[in-house]
Amino acid sequence: MVQTKLPNITHSIGVDIGGTKMSAVLFDLEKNEIIADYQLATPKDNLDNFLVMLWALIDPLIEKAKKEKFNVGRVGIGVAGVVDQPPPKNLEGKILDSPNLKIINNVSLGKIVFEKYGLPVVMDNDANCFLLAETKLGAVKNYASAVGVTLGTGIGGAFTVNHEIFHGVHGSAGEIGAMIVDVVEDVPHTLEEMYHNLTQANPELVAAEAYEGDELAGKVYEEVGRFIGLTLASMINIVDPEIIVIGGSVMKSSGLFMTEIKKNLKAEILSPKLKKIKIVAGKVERAGAVGAALLSPSM
Amino acid sequence: MVQTKLPNITHSIGVDIGGTKMSAVLFDLEKNEIIADYQLATPKDNLDNFLVMLWALIDPLIEKAKKEKFNVGRVGIGVAGVVDQPPPKNLEGKILDSPNLKIINNVSLGKIVFEKYGLPVVMDNDANCFLLAETKLGAVKNYASAVGVTLGTGIGGAFTVNHEIFHGVHGSAGEIGAMIVDVVEDVPHTLEEMYHNLTQANPELVAAEAYEGDELAGKVYEEVGRFIGLTLASMINIVDPEIIVIGGSVMKSSGLFMTEIKKNLKAEILSPKLKKIKIVAGKVERAGAVGAALLSPSM
Repeated sequence: MVQTKLPNITHSIGVDIGGTKMSAVLFDLEKNEIIADYQLATPKDNLDNFLVMLWALIDPLIEKAKKEKFNVGRVGIGVAGVVDQPPPKNLEGKILDSPNLKIINNVSLGKIVFEKYGLPVVMDNDANCFLLAETKLGAVKNYASAVGVTLGTGIGGAFTVNHEIFHGVHGSAGEIGAMIVDVVEDVPHTLEEMYHNLTQANPELVAAEAYEGDELAGKVYEEVGRFIGLTLASMINIVDPEIIVIGGSVMKSSGLFMTEIKKNLKAEILSPKLKKIKIVAGKVERAGAVGAALLSPSM
Repeated sequence: MVQTKLPNITHSIGVDIGGTKMSAVLFDLEKNEIIADYQLATPKDNLDNFLVMLWALIDPLIEKAKKEKFNVGRVGIGVAGVVDQPPPKNLEGKILDSPNLKIINNVSLGKIVFEKYGLPVVMDNDANCFLLAETKLGAVKNYASAVGVTLGTGIGGAFTVNHEIFHGVHGSAGEIGAMIVDVVEDVPHTLEEMYHNLTQANPELVAAEAYEGDELAGKVYEEVGRFIGLTLASMINIVDPEIIVIGGSVMKSSGLFMTEIKKNLKAEILSPKLKKIKIVAGKVERAGAVGAALLSPSM
């Protein structure tokens, strides 16, 4: 009898597809570190252009891995939207709803990437990837139960139970952006809508204006902080976790809104013990892409 | 060596302490049926009167069990509020926050009941008890993951993961009533507050008026249904369950608000697959007390 030894997977590719930027990393799974990373603007006009840029993002990392003779075992992809099923069920890797990148709606992206590179593809929501990275390597490493929020073009949410991402039955658990936080003239508004409207769909620009002393932009971010705090309280009252971690590109401007988040969060938490919950900033660089690289088919 | 055989526990007492009524059952754990049950108005003036009525509720059931030589193994108590810790950690059985029955706030009710009857006491939130009964015996028996909502004096919420009640880290998970659903003139309002204000803290009376043709009362319940639907959507977008079950004393008037709940719920669910979620009425009679009777120290 011949014993075949499976080659040991040492590296993976992680891709983070956001509404404005997309980034990819070549990741060392043994040392838990980024070997190389690229970042590009997300093409939003059509799927062909999107795929051209996606290959431009991944190709150099695959080339580098070949040259170094790394054994790349898989490609992990995080998407700002609802992925058909949580891993390992998302064989097609279909994106059901991506509010900030409509060109990939109903696209079986996992299958397309598999056919391109011949590597197993694992996909998940981008906020789940962010929280996975922070849980395995970052700010909430020693916590069994954390809530994660990402502030970028849109707002993403996720939570862990017993150190694992909670996916729910259809893979869409943790969607804090979809929570209703206000009803204005009989029309309900989600946190995502409030965030989008307040920041005029350009949160980084408005943050820069606020830092330059624009009072209106400053007020916008106080409002953003208030609505995030209120909605986060609603989520915390449901999930009852140990800690909250916030990340995403807008967190570099956290000075504009963190006080408001904390104030409104604590005011609206029901359980006296839960009111003392810690709230921390994410620590992992390129957490979305790193979390995607950490996605495993056995999850 | 003498082998001692532990007596087989065949029955338990289940107590449901609501903001308006409290009820207790003597429950057959083998046949899963109620042997006897009592119901009383909840005294709200002071703790001594409350305890007098609580003993009046439980004493006859203990007497009956003694007479029939049932082996009653424990007392389970469901409370409309936050209990210190989920079972089995709530040894003191302290109530941290009971918004509709403030006289039991910070009272170690579990300890008091244990000292009175000498039986192990297990406590939990009343909505958790409701959902436990519906999960073990009722409308969501074959579902691993359900969200439960109770409509009574207040609004309670709970959810199951892998057929078990999800308690969270501090025992306060699932609190749908504490979720923010509207901000009116800069003041955030929880679902519980909207429900309380709309029904003037007397939901059963307003429901009766609506059935008698009072148009204003009818409108109130349309609004109640709308806000429940919106908030439930927020919770569903976080938990991503298979099914929703609604119970509580106000569900006998479900004709007044169920259409509005469903309409607003479906409109606000993010994931396309989750939008098809089923919503059913509870089936178990005295579900709160039965669920309390089913509470087990090993949970």
